[in-house]
Amino acid sequence: MARVPGGLWKNLIALQVFGANTGVGKTVFSTLLGAHFGRRAGNTKWRVKYIKPVSTGPAGEADDSYVHKYSGQRVSTLFKFDEAVSPHVAARGSKLVPSDELISQTIFQTVQEEARAVSSEQGTTGLSIIETAGGVLSPGPSGTPQADLLRPLRLPSILVGDHRLGGIASTISAAESLIMRGYDIDAVVCFEDQSKYENAQYLNKYFKEMGVSAFILPWIPNMEGIGAGTSEEMKVMQGYYESQSQKSHMNDIAGHLVNSHSERLKKMDAMASRTSEAIWHPFTQHKHVKSADDILVFDSAYGDYFQVKRTGLQPEEDSILYPAFDGSASWWTQGLGHGNPRLALEAAYAAGRYGHVMFAGATHEPALTLAETLLEDSNNPRLKKVFYTDNGSTATEVAIKMALRATSKRYDWDSAKDPVGVIGLKGSYHGDTIGAMDASEPCVFNEKVDWYRGRGFWFEYPTFKLKNGQWVVEPPVGMQEEFGPAQYFDAQDDIFNLAQRGPYDRYEAYIEKTLDELVKTQGRKFGALVMEPVILGAGGMMFVDPLFQQSLVHVVRRYDFSSGASPPSPSTGTDELAWSGLPVVFDEVFTGLYRLGRFTSASFLNLHPDISVHAKLLTGGLLPLSITAASTSIFQAFWGDEKAEALLHGHSYTAHAVGCHVANTSLQTTKRAKNGEEWAAFKQQWAPAERTNDEHHLWSAWSKRFVYQLSKHPSVEFVNALGSVLAVSIVDEAGSGMCFFLVFLTITPSHLTRC
Amino acid sequence: MARVPGGLWKNLIALQVFGANTGVGKTVFSTLLGAHFGRRAGNTKWRVKYIKPVSTGPAGEADDSYVHKYSGQRVSTLFKFDEAVSPHVAARGSKLVPSDELISQTIFQTVQEEARAVSSEQGTTGLSIIETAGGVLSPGPSGTPQADLLRPLRLPSILVGDHRLGGIASTISAAESLIMRGYDIDAVVCFEDQSKYENAQYLNKYFKEMGVSAFILPWIPNMEGIGAGTSEEMKVMQGYYESQSQKSHMNDIAGHLVNSHSERLKKMDAMASRTSEAIWHPFTQHKHVKSADDILVFDSAYGDYFQVKRTGLQPEEDSILYPAFDGSASWWTQGLGHGNPRLALEAAYAAGRYGHVMFAGATHEPALTLAETLLEDSNNPRLKKVFYTDNGSTATEVAIKMALRATSKRYDWDSAKDPVGVIGLKGSYHGDTIGAMDASEPCVFNEKVDWYRGRGFWFEYPTFKLKNGQWVVEPPVGMQEEFGPAQYFDAQDDIFNLAQRGPYDRYEAYIEKTLDELVKTQGRKFGALVMEPVILGAGGMMFVDPLFQQSLVHVVRRYDFSSGASPPSPSTGTDELAWSGLPVVFDEVFTGLYRLGRFTSASFLNLHPDISVHAKLLTGGLLPLSITAASTSIFQAFWGDEKAEALLHGHSYTAHAVGCHVANTSLQTTKRAKNGEEWAAFKQQWAPAERTNDEHHLWSAWSKRFVYQLSKHPSVEFVNALGSVLAVSIVDEAGSGMCFFLVFLTITPSHLTRC
Repeated sequence: MARVPGGLWKNLIALQVFGANTGVGKTVFSTLLGAHFGRRAGNTKWRVKYIKPVSTGPAGEADDSYVHKYSGQRVSTLFKFDEAVSPHVAARGSKLVPSDELISQTIFQTVQEEARAVSSEQGTTGLSIIETAGGVLSPGPSGTPQADLLRPLRLPSILVGDHRLGGIASTISAAESLIMRGYDIDAVVCFEDQSKYENAQYLNKYFKEMGVSAFILPWIPNMEGIGAGTSEEMKVMQGYYESQSQKSHMNDIAGHLVNSHSERLKKMDAMASRTSEAIWHPFTQHKHVKSADDILVFDSAYGDYFQVKRTGLQPEEDSILYPAFDGSASWWTQGLGHGNPRLALEAAYAAGRYGHVMFAGATHEPALTLAETLLEDSNNPRLKKVFYTDNGSTATEVAIKMALRATSKRYDWDSAKDPVGVIGLKGSYHGDTIGAMDASEPCVFNEKVDWYRGRGFWFEYPTFKLKNGQWVVEPPVGMQEEFGPAQYFDAQDDIFNLAQRGPYDRYEAYIEKTLDELVKTQGRKFGALVMEPVILGAGGMMFVDPLFQQSLVHVVRRYDFSSGASPPSPSTGTDELAWSGLPVVFDEVFTGLYRLGRFTSASFLNLHPDISVHAKLLTGGLLPLSITAASTSIFQAFWGDEKAEALLHGHSYTAHAVGCHVANTSLQTTKRAKNGEEWAAFKQQWAPAERTNDEHHLWSAWSKRFVYQLSKHPSVEFVNALGSVLAVSIVDEAGSGMCFFLVFLTITPSHLTRC
Repeated sequence: MARVPGGLWKNLIALQVFGANTGVGKTVFSTLLGAHFGRRAGNTKWRVKYIKPVSTGPAGEADDSYVHKYSGQRVSTLFKFDEAVSPHVAARGSKLVPSDELISQTIFQTVQEEARAVSSEQGTTGLSIIETAGGVLSPGPSGTPQADLLRPLRLPSILVGDHRLGGIASTISAAESLIMRGYDIDAVVCFEDQSKYENAQYLNKYFKEMGVSAFILPWIPNMEGIGAGTSEEMKVMQGYYESQSQKSHMNDIAGHLVNSHSERLKKMDAMASRTSEAIWHPFTQHKHVKSADDILVFDSAYGDYFQVKRTGLQPEEDSILYPAFDGSASWWTQGLGHGNPRLALEAAYAAGRYGHVMFAGATHEPALTLAETLLEDSNNPRLKKVFYTDNGSTATEVAIKMALRATSKRYDWDSAKDPVGVIGLKGSYHGDTIGAMDASEPCVFNEKVDWYRGRGFWFEYPTFKLKNGQWVVEPPVGMQEEFGPAQYFDAQDDIFNLAQRGPYDRYEAYIEKTLDELVKTQGRKFGALVMEPVILGAGGMMFVDPLFQQSLVHVVRRYDFSSGASPPSPSTGTDELAWSGLPVVFDEVFTGLYRLGRFTSASFLNLHPDISVHAKLLTGGLLPLSITAASTSIFQAFWGDEKAEALLHGHSYTAHAVGCHVANTSLQTTKRAKNGEEWAAFKQQWAPAERTNDEHHLWSAWSKRFVYQLSKHPSVEFVNALGSVLAVSIVDEAGSGMCFFLVFLTITPSHLTRC
């Protein structure tokens, strides 16, 4: 998850040479390439450098001296180990094992220096050839497969094919391993050994059909009967490199590589303006996009970072890519980081096993396993059924359909004639389809939407925060009478100690009084309580007093919403798990699935909703997928003889196998992290002194010291830190609070370990 | 795309042995496995068979005789070639090159016969070891990589690792190639050669961390100094197999394999009932699901077929999987077939390069390329901007938001006070979120949805069909006066010859009269015409007279909907591409993207909508993704100084890179097919005699002869056949028409070539 810039220079072509296996001619090809560019006449003068990131074995046999000898070019090996074994074995004997990050950083720096030198040599273009060791996935010194450790640079790659028996298979598999790690293969190069295997012909055709350029090179001279290291050998090889490096096939390859590089640069340059031509961006007032340069052009992303194209003035010799921290975790979707090779592989597995298979009247393992995991790990005895849709908005629509039908049915309402609304909190947000919008109060996001009709009532609520080193629960302005004065706490944990704090009569009385006014006086009908537990994310990172949310649920569950008609007992009789009052819907799209350190955010309120909505983090940050989980008493409201009584909702890709399988992988991985050492350190530092052994206290992925200090900063009004969410409210110049928020990117070992 | 059953038997374990490369010990391992099971004492008597699907080289050196010699088990080679080269080279010299389908069929039959034999031998269990040739992707006789040609059977796989230098890389890459083709790897087996490379240790750890079982086996005897084929060699090897096959590591492997098999069976058996516990299915009245056996359990899918678990009584010896044709193309999503390895690889590429990256104010190549392709290939000069969402329903909501804002703004309506509806066709369907539902008239699908409010007016329309060999356009019952009598045509093409047929005064007069009643008399306001061109899919495969749809658009575009306020000229002045009357929205979710043989279904009507919606086929059938394309005059309605004036819509995974990249691959592939020989044959047979060279005539992926004959069948009321859609209306017993529909699965070369 290195913060290494992507490698793309205007004045220099950096290429990495991979082999389909060892012994396929990587070094021969690198030498040919170096010799070709180094000796090439023409308009361009090339400054060539051959870089071997990691080398093992005696210095005399090293690839760098071979390349230097025959290509005449400058060479450099970055990390050397004496033993002629795989780097991960060789490194074990070494005192200093270079980290993955150090290796990719060092490659970057080395090429960057070349680019600087190139820019100081008039009329010169650079070529850096980075030759990898062994096969595509041979381990580097740390043991990480090479293609993974080099990934942050994402250099264009040349794959040298395997000419031997079995080489067709190993070459295609090696290419697949590169492709699924997000590499672009500029060329596959095969030496034509004139054997009966005909690998070169097969591979050439295969890759061209895939859209990957492929080239055949003549065979390396037969050295049989010529002693290794003799002057005879040297003469033969010198002749080979001199003649072959200038032949037409090398011209073809070189021309193609130069062209690929300039095409990539051209494309990158044009992308912002092409985007402003063709794309209508989400949530964007396009009049505010002053120029195409305001659009971030992503070359790729890895770990916590985007690789973004630089805009504006910059030194000519700098890489045009820079790593930008994904502060919003790409709208709070990311769980395992960008470009995660495991998620990519698992996505491909499900695609290869199923593609998408229709889900009506059918089942498949990924969807079933995911549903069971969600039901089990939610640890909510009410939730028994999972309904799949595609995003938080559609999942909320389903939740509302579920809840309203259950209510209308039990209370015998005709909602076609008599409108039924929802109860919620001010500033709530559940998505952008009309049904989800209608569950939020009017605001800037929906005021101009012609079909929007806010259908419900939204409560005010007190919020909690860390202000100048002090935890406090505060009522909103003008609501002191209703909610009482500010309450101060020693620790965030104390705010969530609801058993000790509650029941708080003032909250319950206010809620009851308000409901009486709405239901008894105004005669309004409500079909659900729809609420984001703990944090209202999109509404501006409002951290709601958990006691208020708990009180609201308690009151709603005992309140008589039947509007005169005495409510019939739940369809399951005296089932204590059946909904009462109104079905309680928790929208955990933002807060659920470990975002706050726990599987559900409902658990912070010690509550079991009747319906629960999850999305965003569900797939670990790869694909759209969402679920609405419901209780048996909700499910039974759709049970009937008529088809029309069923929940007639569905999208074409309902429960798509790729999303479900990736979700399973992501949840498993995060669960392991949760129970592992990585999270323990964070928990430890936030543990109240008397509760160090208690796993259930609140914690943040940000250091406690940092958070408290931040809260005391003069420009900071208050902060909140829970799980991976950090919200900082900045005092603006006029002195009024202006909320600015940041979200910590990942909650996985790879990230947390580094903090 | 073979119709081969998946291989899973209750009384027999069928395993395939892959090698990470040639020469890694596949045959040694297969022999050990055979010997272990063959000689094993205990409760189970094993009937072992070793199967070599394809063998090359002289008979004396064949793997089967080696395995027989040392394991003592029964062996069989299915296809033999004499030359010791890759099967695709060897087969070239042969007169009969077995097809991929024949090979997988033959393997299936061979194992099936074993299963039959097992069931006739009391107390016996079967083990079939299928040993592949070369590496995982070594070409079979046809040239198809082996892992692809064997994929329909999807047998559990054992991967023998490569112990040599470079073998770590080649083993992991080989595993990745298997995984991305949807195989389950039951075990990775590495021979421990005690070299300094330590491959076995590394691989063992690597795979275990991935959740794949891995085993280390002791090294094969050193045969140095022992002549090949001598009795000495035989003695050494016999000793090796006898001792090693009974040792604890083979016990471990064998136990694991037996356990994996029984766990898989158990899981398959439990899936239906577990599903009925945990899953709330889309569009399903669960009361109608009489038993868990009604749920189709998909093991996997490939090409046009699901692999479904058998239910009910069946011979014990049959595979419990059968291939079931995916008749609805999984709700009309499939373009390139299930389990397509190319789509899987491309999905992994985008996942590896980006994961998901947020799209607000940003751009990336897959989303940009897809947007440009859609705009260009739509060949609609109006469409200039693409907005991304997740499915047809959300894309329709966006379309409605776009259109209504444009109308309200131009006509200066306050839609919060004065409701604005849409104009559409009866029986239309646009999705299940509330906004999309509201654009359809009341019907069984929405009647019980509490927040549903049909907002609009929906026209009756004439439909066309092939009735008893005769093409006819018919008015609906009771509408003869409005639409005129039935019109008969020689060919489907003539129905779509709108230039010759139109304008049809009767249609236009009816539409105008109806609009006058709605707008002038009742004072209703409308903000869009929302229509599915040519076919109303979900509404029951209604094929609408294209002349009626064209007439409706023509009238709407010249009609004054401004309700008294004289309509201001379009914001772009006299721009002929600006919308007039009402914005015209085409929902091409079902009919677009080559479903009917053309990129857009709008082209059949010779019309250019102002807003166009695509989904379903967009990703070739892998993932949810949708777009709403709009004209400049629509886009400009959201241009303003205030954020609230923008289109404030967006989903977390907007324009997710995996979906966009897969969509690009799918559209490219289909475009190649469209212009290729594969489609030419279909076009040819539907070509009107005088227009054989005209590429633009209508055609069906079903044979013309078959379609005409079907239309004359006594039980068939009528048929429709256009592109890949075939709809057959069956006359039910009471004599009234009952529509039954079928959709042809794919529109790709692989499928069409076979027809």
